[in-house]
Amino acid sequence: MQLGVVGLGRMGANIVRRLIRAGHSCVVHDANPGPGQALAAEGAIDTASLAALVQALTPPRAVWVMLPAGAVTEGAIAELAALLAPGDTIIDGGNTFWKDDIRRAEVLAKQQLSYLDIGTSGGVWGLERGYCLMIGGDQAAAARLDPIFQALAPGRGDIPETRHRDGRGGTAEQGYLHCGPSGAGHYVKMIHNGIEYGMMQAFAEGFDILKNAGSARLAEGQRFDLDLADIAEVWRRGSVVTSWLLDLTAEALAEDGALADFSGHVDDSGEGRWTVEAAIEQATPAEVLTSALYTRFRSRQDHTFAEKVLSAMRKGFGGHQEPKKPA
Amino acid sequence: MQLGVVGLGRMGANIVRRLIRAGHSCVVHDANPGPGQALAAEGAIDTASLAALVQALTPPRAVWVMLPAGAVTEGAIAELAALLAPGDTIIDGGNTFWKDDIRRAEVLAKQQLSYLDIGTSGGVWGLERGYCLMIGGDQAAAARLDPIFQALAPGRGDIPETRHRDGRGGTAEQGYLHCGPSGAGHYVKMIHNGIEYGMMQAFAEGFDILKNAGSARLAEGQRFDLDLADIAEVWRRGSVVTSWLLDLTAEALAEDGALADFSGHVDDSGEGRWTVEAAIEQATPAEVLTSALYTRFRSRQDHTFAEKVLSAMRKGFGGHQEPKKPA
Amino acid sequence: MQLGVVGLGRMGANIVRRLIRAGHSCVVHDANPGPGQALAAEGAIDTASLAALVQALTPPRAVWVMLPAGAVTEGAIAELAALLAPGDTIIDGGNTFWKDDIRRAEVLAKQQLSYLDIGTSGGVWGLERGYCLMIGGDQAAAARLDPIFQALAPGRGDIPETRHRDGRGGTAEQGYLHCGPSGAGHYVKMIHNGIEYGMMQAFAEGFDILKNAGSARLAEGQRFDLDLADIAEVWRRGSVVTSWLLDLTAEALAEDGALADFSGHVDDSGEGRWTVEAAIEQATPAEVLTSALYTRFRSRQDHTFAEKVLSAMRKGFGGHQEPKKPA
Amino acid sequence: MQLGVVGLGRMGANIVRRLIRAGHSCVVHDANPGPGQALAAEGAIDTASLAALVQALTPPRAVWVMLPAGAVTEGAIAELAALLAPGDTIIDGGNTFWKDDIRRAEVLAKQQLSYLDIGTSGGVWGLERGYCLMIGGDQAAAARLDPIFQALAPGRGDIPETRHRDGRGGTAEQGYLHCGPSGAGHYVKMIHNGIEYGMMQAFAEGFDILKNAGSARLAEGQRFDLDLADIAEVWRRGSVVTSWLLDLTAEALAEDGALADFSGHVDDSGEGRWTVEAAIEQATPAEVLTSALYTRFRSRQDHTFAEKVLSAMRKGFGGHQEPKKPA
Repeated sequence: MQLGVVGLGRMGANIVRRLIRAGHSCVVHDANPGPGQALAAEGAIDTASLAALVQALTPPRAVWVMLPAGAVTEGAIAELAALLAPGDTIIDGGNTFWKDDIRRAEVLAKQQLSYLDIGTSGGVWGLERGYCLMIGGDQAAAARLDPIFQALAPGRGDIPETRHRDGRGGTAEQGYLHCGPSGAGHYVKMIHNGIEYGMMQAFAEGFDILKNAGSARLAEGQRFDLDLADIAEVWRRGSVVTSWLLDLTAEALAEDGALADFSGHVDDSGEGRWTVEAAIEQATPAEVLTSALYTRFRSRQDHTFAEKVLSAMRKGFGGHQEPKKPA
Repeated sequence: MQLGVVGLGRMGANIVRRLIRAGHSCVVHDANPGPGQALAAEGAIDTASLAALVQALTPPRAVWVMLPAGAVTEGAIAELAALLAPGDTIIDGGNTFWKDDIRRAEVLAKQQLSYLDIGTSGGVWGLERGYCLMIGGDQAAAARLDPIFQALAPGRGDIPETRHRDGRGGTAEQGYLHCGPSGAGHYVKMIHNGIEYGMMQAFAEGFDILKNAGSARLAEGQRFDLDLADIAEVWRRGSVVTSWLLDLTAEALAEDGALADFSGHVDDSGEGRWTVEAAIEQATPAEVLTSALYTRFRSRQDHTFAEKVLSAMRKGFGGHQEPKKPA
Repeated sequence: MQLGVVGLGRMGANIVRRLIRAGHSCVVHDANPGPGQALAAEGAIDTASLAALVQALTPPRAVWVMLPAGAVTEGAIAELAALLAPGDTIIDGGNTFWKDDIRRAEVLAKQQLSYLDIGTSGGVWGLERGYCLMIGGDQAAAARLDPIFQALAPGRGDIPETRHRDGRGGTAEQGYLHCGPSGAGHYVKMIHNGIEYGMMQAFAEGFDILKNAGSARLAEGQRFDLDLADIAEVWRRGSVVTSWLLDLTAEALAEDGALADFSGHVDDSGEGRWTVEAAIEQATPAEVLTSALYTRFRSRQDHTFAEKVLSAMRKGFGGHQEPKKPA
Repeated sequence: MQLGVVGLGRMGANIVRRLIRAGHSCVVHDANPGPGQALAAEGAIDTASLAALVQALTPPRAVWVMLPAGAVTEGAIAELAALLAPGDTIIDGGNTFWKDDIRRAEVLAKQQLSYLDIGTSGGVWGLERGYCLMIGGDQAAAARLDPIFQALAPGRGDIPETRHRDGRGGTAEQGYLHCGPSGAGHYVKMIHNGIEYGMMQAFAEGFDILKNAGSARLAEGQRFDLDLADIAEVWRRGSVVTSWLLDLTAEALAEDGALADFSGHVDDSGEGRWTVEAAIEQATPAEVLTSALYTRFRSRQDHTFAEKVLSAMRKGFGGHQEPKKPA
């Protein structure tokens, strides 16, 4: 099957590669010529512009946009919409805010263009393992593109079947799912990332406590000098916290138990923030997902102004001087 | 190899079964006669008292105590200590507070008894999958019991080797680990459970938001009626949140997407609380692990007194009447 | 000075009363005839429609809208805008979202209408104590209305002067403040309410712990049966937590230390939610303000779906049955 | 009345001063000779040792110990206990852990010594405003020392009477309260400080958001450059957040709106930690009090190990490089 792919960063390029390996045909474009040339060598058809890409595709066309969420994606989709014809499909595979999907789908529908929002998980491992795809929007368009999704998704693999699913069928067991109308794909991906933040933070705090179990500030005879790499490793077998994130932690700790190459400045992407906003819109308490986000905010500052306010108050009522940082 | 096992609840009984299947010999005892008789039929030697159990073992003896943490375990260990001889080993495989291990090990050392504290993870699945063992205490005793640990642990299985561990060796890759001196085993298990609480809460909040995405209180056109079972299933393949806890969630949701059989009263065990206390002793911030614990506290009350105080204040300054519960 | 007031609920009516007592003249309107008639008896000029209210005012007119935030306020302001003339001023004294103020001010400016957004704190006590006013928008309009603000605000009273303010001057010391351009008034009020949520929750949790200090689940000899009313009272004198919220808590507890008339269902208004959203937009961690909000969300549900997910997982890996609620 | 005072730091010395000004007689001792000499000049009787202090007092003696909680206080009380006679009273006015009070009171009771644990709030302002006293322990001893407490406490002052207290009486309205048996005084003080942490954090976060409202990262036209000193000031009049902590914040911000002299390293004392531990013992959720504590823990580190773990995971699954700190 034929697919246009716009945006050939790590994710976009690997999506193309995985499709080509599965026998699909990809027409590609990127603002920089390099990635397209590299993929051409692997069998893709590289094009110099969106117009050229659209021309190179046979109707009904499908174009997967894999660009940074926000203005860049918005612009590319607007440009594509002007070039495509009724019956064609635009896919946003990036990390777009789900309400933007709803708005866009309505606009594109007036031009008889289909729109799919696809949350794509898999990171740098997707090429090899496959991408978990969460799809929202026009069901007919999604059905037409099923071979593409099947090729991108991990498939059943050797993952044991879930009890109680007998006879349920559907594509979820192959790693892709039409979740609902426009926005639903990115909504589900957003919550996925929110959960990911929370899980990451759970591991992070746990290993922090394990690390500090050896602190000289603790009472003698009540300290442990623990081997974090071995602990992460042992949990990979038979314990309840077994998970991909634990595998990655075990790997990082095996390389360097002190993680000395990392400073601890942690970025966040839109999904974590939108998850909290969605929770608040619904009046759903989401302590853990929110705290995980706030830890990242805090990690990027030397000190918050809030902390200075605390110090100022403490001086005001108690004459307390600020402590020195521990060495 | 021979092992005494005291306490034949679900965990204790399955430990015996797994050892017998691996060719080891178990002398067992439980306050109730039933479980011991059942295990006798499977090849264990059942005994009617701790004294009889000790008698039936060949020195140097090793007795694994698998009882509820607290007074019950404390009593059994004291009784065993009086019956055992220098060179023997007592293992506490339950969920004992790590500072109790340190205290006990000191007392037992004076009697020339070895003491091992072993955090045991695996739940109802351990019999089949093996138990992840986190071991603290006397290294020589642990070395002597290596065949037991090897039989109980899951082993390498088909879990891929962790990158960067090349040549590291050790038993962690087989699912058991001597973590450090007395208390270290239960300390590591405690943090394991703390992380588990945090991960569980991350999933719980995420699925709560997904569920409420269909709430009639949200703006029309901005609601999704999502299939939670399929979403959990699709995440099992290729996504970053892949984990055993997700597998279990997928299973429960496949059985009933509304989880209508569950009321939502969630118990907590000592480890979650001790994890927070350990964090506070170290001055390590642990927002997520703590929030996960507090959610459980809250889940067991109709209303907190705190909430009544809020209502009282709101009436005081704003004349606000309490809202009615949503239907 | 003359002021139009639209919306004669508790806040609106008391604002009119306080202005009349200070010698100002008020032209009033409410959708229901009752409140206007009552105020007419106290010296206000009641009108039957917005058009009549506008007619009864002498240009340059100023109309204070005191209606529920959202569609009701939006509609009233649109209707007034069509009736007013260049040079007139619309004041939104309600709890409007600050970005709506920015939008509205731009629209109204094109009609040469001034717009002020005023956050108004004081609750049911404002009539007697005065209202704390946080003003945003057109500075000239604010200056013209200074006599109104002076009458509504509490004034210096017997509150001691703040050290280090010597010579600073300004109106803040009298209880009203022009905070900045359009939106700034409601922004400052929003954060005020966010802080209020956090402070309330701090007291609520503290009294909850004091209450539970007598719980029969605690070890004997380590329980206290505390008199919460007396504790709140003693803190009112010389302690660091002295505050108006404590006064109100003391009052409620003096009336009934068990707060038995309150169920503990706690509503929340937009400001608490918007505060969290503002924090997230800025990447400012705001744990306490957010937790205070989530407590209210949680208070309005019997159980969250999240809690059911936890129960389901616990059953899945450990065979745990849900505990019964404590009696 | 006569009182011995041991420990003449800021709090101890000011307690002596306030008592002397009220006509009481103080026999004092400090490990350093300076403070005692200074107080001797103001009318106190300085002594060179605990033995001398005990000698200088007329039975039944009462000795107020005002030393750092922990080993120092423990040692002084043990030494005093050996010097005092049946019928004498030891007061611990410091920040002792309430379970230590219970233990101590039992030991001292065997020597027929009375023990009072008194939580003392008032900070550097106590000398002038009076101290809020929360008293636990022997009721007869407390009754005997009533004149001392009356002199130390703020008294009714001009604080309005709490509604609904009519006829209730008691000393709470004068700023001191016998809260219950041994430990109750420090327990109530502990929760007081826990609440204080929460309130401080609520203000801190609120002002942090107000400060960041001017951030250049926000959309143009949606930023405010707010005068924090004036905002704190305006809230002091008529708003719901009126409080002593707000007064102190207003003062600090009036001195320097940027709080540039403060780095933001915030210490914590035992009470905040014990409050959380008490909550956990009771299974009382205490999100806000706990988050306030954790903020302080975090403020004293450049980065947590937790944050490095997050960075390591993000690199592992997404190839994400750590962002640079914002300038």
